[in-house]
Amino acid sequence: MHFFSDNAASVHPSVWAAMQAADSPDFAYDADALSRSLDEAFSALFGAPCTALWVATGTAANCLALSAMVPPHGAVVCHHEAHIEMDEGGAPGLFLHGAKLLLAEGEGGLLTPETILRRIAPIRPGVHQVQPHAISITQASEQGRVYRPQEVAAIGALARARGLGLHMDGARLANAIAHLDCTPAAVTVEAGVDALSFGFIKNGGLSAEAMVFFDPALAERVRFARKQSGHLQSKGRYLAAQILALLEHDQWRANARAANAAAQELAGACAGRLIEPVEANELFVILSEPEKTALRGAGFDFYDWPAPQGAPGAARLVTAWNSDPVHVAALARAIANL
Amino acid sequence: MHFFSDNAASVHPSVWAAMQAADSPDFAYDADALSRSLDEAFSALFGAPCTALWVATGTAANCLALSAMVPPHGAVVCHHEAHIEMDEGGAPGLFLHGAKLLLAEGEGGLLTPETILRRIAPIRPGVHQVQPHAISITQASEQGRVYRPQEVAAIGALARARGLGLHMDGARLANAIAHLDCTPAAVTVEAGVDALSFGFIKNGGLSAEAMVFFDPALAERVRFARKQSGHLQSKGRYLAAQILALLEHDQWRANARAANAAAQELAGACAGRLIEPVEANELFVILSEPEKTALRGAGFDFYDWPAPQGAPGAARLVTAWNSDPVHVAALARAIANL
Amino acid sequence: MHFFSDNAASVHPSVWAAMQAADSPDFAYDADALSRSLDEAFSALFGAPCTALWVATGTAANCLALSAMVPPHGAVVCHHEAHIEMDEGGAPGLFLHGAKLLLAEGEGGLLTPETILRRIAPIRPGVHQVQPHAISITQASEQGRVYRPQEVAAIGALARARGLGLHMDGARLANAIAHLDCTPAAVTVEAGVDALSFGFIKNGGLSAEAMVFFDPALAERVRFARKQSGHLQSKGRYLAAQILALLEHDQWRANARAANAAAQELAGACAGRLIEPVEANELFVILSEPEKTALRGAGFDFYDWPAPQGAPGAARLVTAWNSDPVHVAALARAIANL
Amino acid sequence: MHFFSDNAASVHPSVWAAMQAADSPDFAYDADALSRSLDEAFSALFGAPCTALWVATGTAANCLALSAMVPPHGAVVCHHEAHIEMDEGGAPGLFLHGAKLLLAEGEGGLLTPETILRRIAPIRPGVHQVQPHAISITQASEQGRVYRPQEVAAIGALARARGLGLHMDGARLANAIAHLDCTPAAVTVEAGVDALSFGFIKNGGLSAEAMVFFDPALAERVRFARKQSGHLQSKGRYLAAQILALLEHDQWRANARAANAAAQELAGACAGRLIEPVEANELFVILSEPEKTALRGAGFDFYDWPAPQGAPGAARLVTAWNSDPVHVAALARAIANL
Repeated sequence: MHFFSDNAASVHPSVWAAMQAADSPDFAYDADALSRSLDEAFSALFGAPCTALWVATGTAANCLALSAMVPPHGAVVCHHEAHIEMDEGGAPGLFLHGAKLLLAEGEGGLLTPETILRRIAPIRPGVHQVQPHAISITQASEQGRVYRPQEVAAIGALARARGLGLHMDGARLANAIAHLDCTPAAVTVEAGVDALSFGFIKNGGLSAEAMVFFDPALAERVRFARKQSGHLQSKGRYLAAQILALLEHDQWRANARAANAAAQELAGACAGRLIEPVEANELFVILSEPEKTALRGAGFDFYDWPAPQGAPGAARLVTAWNSDPVHVAALARAIANL
Repeated sequence: MHFFSDNAASVHPSVWAAMQAADSPDFAYDADALSRSLDEAFSALFGAPCTALWVATGTAANCLALSAMVPPHGAVVCHHEAHIEMDEGGAPGLFLHGAKLLLAEGEGGLLTPETILRRIAPIRPGVHQVQPHAISITQASEQGRVYRPQEVAAIGALARARGLGLHMDGARLANAIAHLDCTPAAVTVEAGVDALSFGFIKNGGLSAEAMVFFDPALAERVRFARKQSGHLQSKGRYLAAQILALLEHDQWRANARAANAAAQELAGACAGRLIEPVEANELFVILSEPEKTALRGAGFDFYDWPAPQGAPGAARLVTAWNSDPVHVAALARAIANL
Repeated sequence: MHFFSDNAASVHPSVWAAMQAADSPDFAYDADALSRSLDEAFSALFGAPCTALWVATGTAANCLALSAMVPPHGAVVCHHEAHIEMDEGGAPGLFLHGAKLLLAEGEGGLLTPETILRRIAPIRPGVHQVQPHAISITQASEQGRVYRPQEVAAIGALARARGLGLHMDGARLANAIAHLDCTPAAVTVEAGVDALSFGFIKNGGLSAEAMVFFDPALAERVRFARKQSGHLQSKGRYLAAQILALLEHDQWRANARAANAAAQELAGACAGRLIEPVEANELFVILSEPEKTALRGAGFDFYDWPAPQGAPGAARLVTAWNSDPVHVAALARAIANL
Repeated sequence: MHFFSDNAASVHPSVWAAMQAADSPDFAYDADALSRSLDEAFSALFGAPCTALWVATGTAANCLALSAMVPPHGAVVCHHEAHIEMDEGGAPGLFLHGAKLLLAEGEGGLLTPETILRRIAPIRPGVHQVQPHAISITQASEQGRVYRPQEVAAIGALARARGLGLHMDGARLANAIAHLDCTPAAVTVEAGVDALSFGFIKNGGLSAEAMVFFDPALAERVRFARKQSGHLQSKGRYLAAQILALLEHDQWRANARAANAAAQELAGACAGRLIEPVEANELFVILSEPEKTALRGAGFDFYDWPAPQGAPGAARLVTAWNSDPVHVAALARAIANL
């Protein structure tokens, strides 16, 4: 019973169907009809004109989007637990040609205007210290926390005031929106986000994420960077098909709701053990080593997690769009009975 | 009737089946059972121990493999028509951190020891001129030509003598081997190739190429570079599945033979029009503008090609693993009747 | 008797004097009074507002200037014999973050609109082939040839029409202007040059070249790139002092005239041996191996050079601002007597 | 009366003399006699075979040396106040092709094995998190503190145990050695340092630092990187001359002693105001705004510095090899009388 991560979950049936429906020949790269329809599909979703480009990994989506905002001598402000800092093998350094990440703090993996300013205010202007050019926030955060629209808007206002781009790593954006029960626009374009990595892989897709740009000039530069980084697949129609399948009938939202609901069911069993409020589909739970051993012995798989000060141990539990209700209920029961 | 390219052809049924068989959960990235079996599968295919890593595009495969051989201050010798020079959007510059391509000549897109030496012999040793660190050859070439084993071996001997790595861009390696009717080893590891991009996408795959390293140290460095360039997909098992499906029962060879046979059928109709001997699945054909118009009017799609000196025009015709025999016969007839 | 190169010649007395006059403390980097006066000095020289930044090598000057014009996925058109291609150890690859050089032809190391177009016209627009973003020309060329103002202007017009930046590698610009007997503006800003490397090191300086930008936005980006590449020296006043000393009383022109005159004196003795017309301070001379041996035996030092088709051998002779008239006369005599 | 920094101080007379003595022609780049003698001079100084290369800035020295130790996907551990992190405009990102800095803590700008381990121990092995490849320490530190030989040796032992390179940023190494009154080897090669930036510019030089490599393979790679980064000056003999002049008769040590002595004289007047013990030539002093105003009104120039918690303000005072004893005494008196 897998609670490791959502990043290797199975593929949603509608995605398989759409991919196979794309099997007849069409033009290569992103000149096919499906890829060419992405702009319209995302513009409808966000209620705002935008450009959308597929790419096969969240790392590529994040770093390509940032590469349009940040020169090689510049920097991105992000949380010290951000995926681009912790889990992308130094990809920002490659895609941004040596630019830096400036690490800021924030409870629950969430930045605030205050924590951002605390990091960038001491930077002397001029050429000696690396200057910030963009802010990157993660929605939902690496701790499974969700920015409210007004929280994003406050960061968006700071970004505009400072002339910084605002990027959102939305590997689990669907889960965040499902939690907020808001429009996609409310936490993105309406809140000042310039470029977005919209994740589908963790939410029923196979190998397609969308980069969404609310400024077409950013997209134009990224088209070249996507090719130069080897991310322009020749059979792009199969990537577009995945995304379109999950957009259709708001399947992305249904999938995210399912994952979130499973997480809430587990959260109910974890009273007193939760390190973070459960807002998306990740739980960070205090578990002692014997408790972890017991759960694993009962067939539940999950990752260890650094324990907070004073706690005997911790683990991360992740649900997915297709978490088996039987498994979820069993795990909830097992934890409650510890 | 599509004769544009093989790079957007449909996916082979065995590949679909294998991908769907991989749909049950497994570990993420390349820790799944399928990805972990690639080394063994390719070692068996080549009769030599090797390390194999999947990646989603030929550009990534070529440039990642080369990045393990060439420092940022170095260079790769390649044909002036090579894909890495002409069609990869400057990807070598990114993946090799600023290293150069040194362009050599050769009939039919094929390098020889002589043309390589003509390019590198004038380079003064030392730091002022960029020094070669690797040779990259393309099998089959961009002109649809095929290196014989002894031709690769001659280049391999030069590479060893000069301390250069030897990389093979095998986007259409299957077609070349099918043409040669030899073992995979004969034109690769036995001929001195150190690293190989083995193409599957043009031959029935969806989104998976293999990088094959006959030196494990090269592979080890590429693991990090693959991650840093955003090419380590989390659902890697679906990529491994594609490759394994085409390796099974030598499906790759059968597919390549089908494409080659279709090309030969067209070649028979193009007597006197061929710019290059047809050895793989690409034809370069002299066609005047009115002839091209006539063919297109009859429903045949293909790309224009630069005409050789004195010719009234030219076109490239590409067959694929699934070229419809009816279409092929129709095109052959139409050309014969021009 | 040194005719190797002008690149290691002694330092002009006015440069020594100016450096020592700068020995009293001032602000660091380029905040000192001398560095801050460069814009004004060059604006007066060119009769046009410009921004001037010192740097310690021609390689840094060329590549930093180009880095402001060319994105990492772009390219620079240059002559296949250009210094940036042949002699800078791959520096463009580093400073331009992987961008390419597109090599064009041209008699005497000189590009023309026709040769540039021949190189770039076949490039398909879009992301697959690397697109040009700038042209770099060398004045005087690597073959010691000089562009006339209208020749630069023709290239400038092409650059503007195509939206390309125009850079001039002026390592020996002083010699070219001395030869043309024109204003500095006539072959640069008035002819469409956007950014310029103005060489002083080969013309009496010690370690200072000027980058001159006729567009302040280019300079602004280069300030950051100069720092990031480790080229912002803390005692910058000693570099500014060198440049100002050579600008004062047009010392740069007097020095270049001296070098050119010495070259002309040698040219007179080389009738029938010259591979290129002598327009600046370099001579490319047909000399057989026995003739070279004889000259070297008589105490003259110079580099071998690739011989043109059919010639028994060749050499390069370079004069400098301080070439000893006695040595020059002796070499002229020795060649005449061969 | 300048107490801003030592980085723009005047040039020592012996340096001027040596540069002018180098004015006769010699081979270009580093093929001249002076540059070729550096290995021997430093091998004698350190009592160990080493390779020494000049370069014009400390930033270039640090980053070039590190570039030989760290691949583009790797990282350097350094103090969060290190010059490479705070003051080099992102140069490590360029020279190391996107590699990261991992920031560790330590009192007085000094790392310890414990603080290094605290930073790197949590890094998971494998490709997802960036792996450390080198440690860089600063001697004397940015807070003017000095590592004892056994402290460097402890870090050297950790580096060896972990397979990491050890680099020392020795912009003020002379001041540190003068303070320790030890041999140059004791705090470097004997303590496990692999590569060293030995600063001369702040200690009487004009534009030359030395990179010293105790492993010739590192130096070999750096030769290429120095050229590619535009740092191989053609008149290199003038840089070598500066270094040799300061090595001769241990002038570097005499100069550093003079700067340190001036700092000690000021330290005596700053009892109760010192934020850090004064070990080299920098003082960090608690001064209220009115006190700073008073001192500046009396003609003393210096930089503000971030005040420690609870302090009314702070300033940095830096002495140099040529700090005027009259000025130093005056400042000491002025502070004592505040």
